[in-house]
Amino acid sequence: MAQKPSIPKGTRDFNPEEVAKRNYIFNVIKQQFEVFGFQPIETPSFENSDTLMGKYGEEGDRLIFKILNSGDYLSKVDENLYNQKDSNKITSSISEKALRYDLTVPFARYVVQHQNEIEFPFKRYQIQPVWRADRPQKGRFREFYQCDADVVGSTSLWQEVEFVQLYDAVFTALKLEGVTIKINNRKILSGIAEVIGAQDKLIDFTVALDKLDKIGEEKVKEEMLGKGIPQSGIDKLQPLFSLSGTFESQVSQLKSILSTSEEGKKGIEELEFIDKAITELGLKTATLQLDVTLARGLNYYTGAIYEVSAPKGVDMGSIGGGGRYDDLTGIFGLKDVSGVGISFGLDRIYLVIESLNLFPETITNTVKALFINFGEAEAMASMKAVKALRENGVSAELFPDNKKTIKQFNYANKRNIPNVVLVGESELASNTFTLKNMSSGDQQQLTLEQLIKALQ
Amino acid sequence: MAQKPSIPKGTRDFNPEEVAKRNYIFNVIKQQFEVFGFQPIETPSFENSDTLMGKYGEEGDRLIFKILNSGDYLSKVDENLYNQKDSNKITSSISEKALRYDLTVPFARYVVQHQNEIEFPFKRYQIQPVWRADRPQKGRFREFYQCDADVVGSTSLWQEVEFVQLYDAVFTALKLEGVTIKINNRKILSGIAEVIGAQDKLIDFTVALDKLDKIGEEKVKEEMLGKGIPQSGIDKLQPLFSLSGTFESQVSQLKSILSTSEEGKKGIEELEFIDKAITELGLKTATLQLDVTLARGLNYYTGAIYEVSAPKGVDMGSIGGGGRYDDLTGIFGLKDVSGVGISFGLDRIYLVIESLNLFPETITNTVKALFINFGEAEAMASMKAVKALRENGVSAELFPDNKKTIKQFNYANKRNIPNVVLVGESELASNTFTLKNMSSGDQQQLTLEQLIKALQ
Repeated sequence: MAQKPSIPKGTRDFNPEEVAKRNYIFNVIKQQFEVFGFQPIETPSFENSDTLMGKYGEEGDRLIFKILNSGDYLSKVDENLYNQKDSNKITSSISEKALRYDLTVPFARYVVQHQNEIEFPFKRYQIQPVWRADRPQKGRFREFYQCDADVVGSTSLWQEVEFVQLYDAVFTALKLEGVTIKINNRKILSGIAEVIGAQDKLIDFTVALDKLDKIGEEKVKEEMLGKGIPQSGIDKLQPLFSLSGTFESQVSQLKSILSTSEEGKKGIEELEFIDKAITELGLKTATLQLDVTLARGLNYYTGAIYEVSAPKGVDMGSIGGGGRYDDLTGIFGLKDVSGVGISFGLDRIYLVIESLNLFPETITNTVKALFINFGEAEAMASMKAVKALRENGVSAELFPDNKKTIKQFNYANKRNIPNVVLVGESELASNTFTLKNMSSGDQQQLTLEQLIKALQ
Repeated sequence: MAQKPSIPKGTRDFNPEEVAKRNYIFNVIKQQFEVFGFQPIETPSFENSDTLMGKYGEEGDRLIFKILNSGDYLSKVDENLYNQKDSNKITSSISEKALRYDLTVPFARYVVQHQNEIEFPFKRYQIQPVWRADRPQKGRFREFYQCDADVVGSTSLWQEVEFVQLYDAVFTALKLEGVTIKINNRKILSGIAEVIGAQDKLIDFTVALDKLDKIGEEKVKEEMLGKGIPQSGIDKLQPLFSLSGTFESQVSQLKSILSTSEEGKKGIEELEFIDKAITELGLKTATLQLDVTLARGLNYYTGAIYEVSAPKGVDMGSIGGGGRYDDLTGIFGLKDVSGVGISFGLDRIYLVIESLNLFPETITNTVKALFINFGEAEAMASMKAVKALRENGVSAELFPDNKKTIKQFNYANKRNIPNVVLVGESELASNTFTLKNMSSGDQQQLTLEQLIKALQ
């Protein structure tokens, strides 16, 4: 093969620096997940197709990567079906497995399959890759990690409170201070739709409202009219377009709009509980903000809806989101298991931290010291020191070949190794080590014990 | 869907305890990899099919999971080809991508693709899942992790030495003391084949020799005869069957067998270098042992061959292996890049640690304390303490619902949570916390500060 190899579009190789930075984010998130009492699970990369298909809508079904059956897979395809040469119809006959599309459906499947081993409420987290046959574009990949924390088996609003705290704790630990945690409630959106006579147009209504930020009030109204929402209803929405002030004052404006909707009032009550608790408990660096235009994945959420935006001044859509769903496991036959969960958008968080220069410098350090190789006897003495350093937890290595010193120094330089250790004839004779700092050029002659101390 | 959902055969769900135990092993291995100067990379789960196909032999090609192209994939299939209904012939027309089969070929692809960004020698490690459409059986899965460390770009034998040390360091850190690191060299096997006149039957010869442990000397000889190796040659092998004693004495016996083979003598020289260095540097808990019957993946290895067996008394094939390969990247057009590497068999290591009861107890601890929920005001006071504990790195949680106390205690019990904290009316009034140890039943009434100290 003469041409340079490549990888499939939408996928990525990660070099050591990128892996270190990604792991830094994963580790901070994991640590907070665990301190909050969430426990990790892992599910297989591929599921039976019938576990995934039909769970994400028609578009989702198309975006699921299917795995070809092994062996003589065509022999099992019905002759008539085969002769139609119809990709859609034939797929289920030649593919029984598919790559995970998200972590939520596999989690629901896990809960139902293992329900007898699980103590409810079950607080689980899961950090694994997912795959989507989406058109690749800037910031959108065909393989990417999801980072989810969910609790299933309780309807307590304390969990909604806890997820606000969890977002605050994670972003504070990542030094991403000043994120905004936007919150809404499906019941408020339903209540508004009810009040303006658009119960049957809830999706159209929320899709339009969701665009308020981007297209402005007039265009939103036009879109609603176009979707058949009556002018009289849209007029009732007016106070919504100018909601402002504190969480509390916005809630009181909402109350007047929703005074005739039981569901709307329930939504307000839930929001007030969460806001009151968060006010009393306090957040470290994040702000909780009511956003009645927030609708993400509405079909799915039944109560609270969250979305996190990056600190002001960083242009980067949402870096996290989630909400309450009342019947996650129903699709697999286990009814009445309420759940609530959030996720973290790793790739975007990475970009935000990178753009704000907030990755700790230490995480990309490789080895602390490279021993220069001056020949076999010197190398053996070096390896003894390397071994002692490693046993003391110091990352060190010997350059494997007795190449020109300048080449070995260049190697240390290019790998950003901060120190070299020289063991030549004189050091061999005196049983010492010359430690040279690569940036300052300073040299010290040290015993092994001193060397270990200097590098620890 | 009424029936209980399941997962594809050969795949696994991992519950929180299993994830914790697996991560413990991964973390110990990673830590040692990094202390030895290896850097992590990650490659995509799927590669272009032409990157993988043809690299693992015919059987390997069959075991590679292929991903079906998206969209109307049949429309691009040639009509004549389609009408043949031949699975083998059609696959490359409907599938362009395939799941990673191992970490070695993607690593070779990575090195060639990124050769201009890499400093050689390049010490990389990679811990990622691989997929094989193998018939699932006990201990063999269709999705499993590989854990590889390799150095490419140097032929120095110090690297062979370092990998012996790395195995020793990892298994010692895992408290798996007493593993045997068996070593051999492809050049010795070639030399023996040369001496007995079976150069052209190297594979047959080594496959037979490899079975010595299992089928015994006579059967091995029979098999060699059957494969056309002359009796006169087999007679020359006699000393091989009774090789014994220390590494050094075995080497000296080998020397007499191989005195007429240049390649064989080179292999002995290499082994002696490694043995001498390891003897001088010392191993912590492992033993290095010469095993001339060791041949694993012979087509592939060109120098040292390693295999690690579990401590005596544990019946569990090899738990690691590796070796030197002189032309890994040649398949992608980059010649003369020598490499050497080892891998760790995670699933088997897990079973060995489990069977010897060597997992540290602390790794499966979940939360340190569950706060019992006695109602809204009590819950709020509890959440303030939970927050303070978490900020001090103590994992704690509030039971989300005000259920019967006995149910909440049961929950703590079943989740192995070692303490519960009671905040009832009297604690609320006195601003204190009752900490109850779940196993001893001991109770203490504490201030928040005392509670944090007690649980830290």
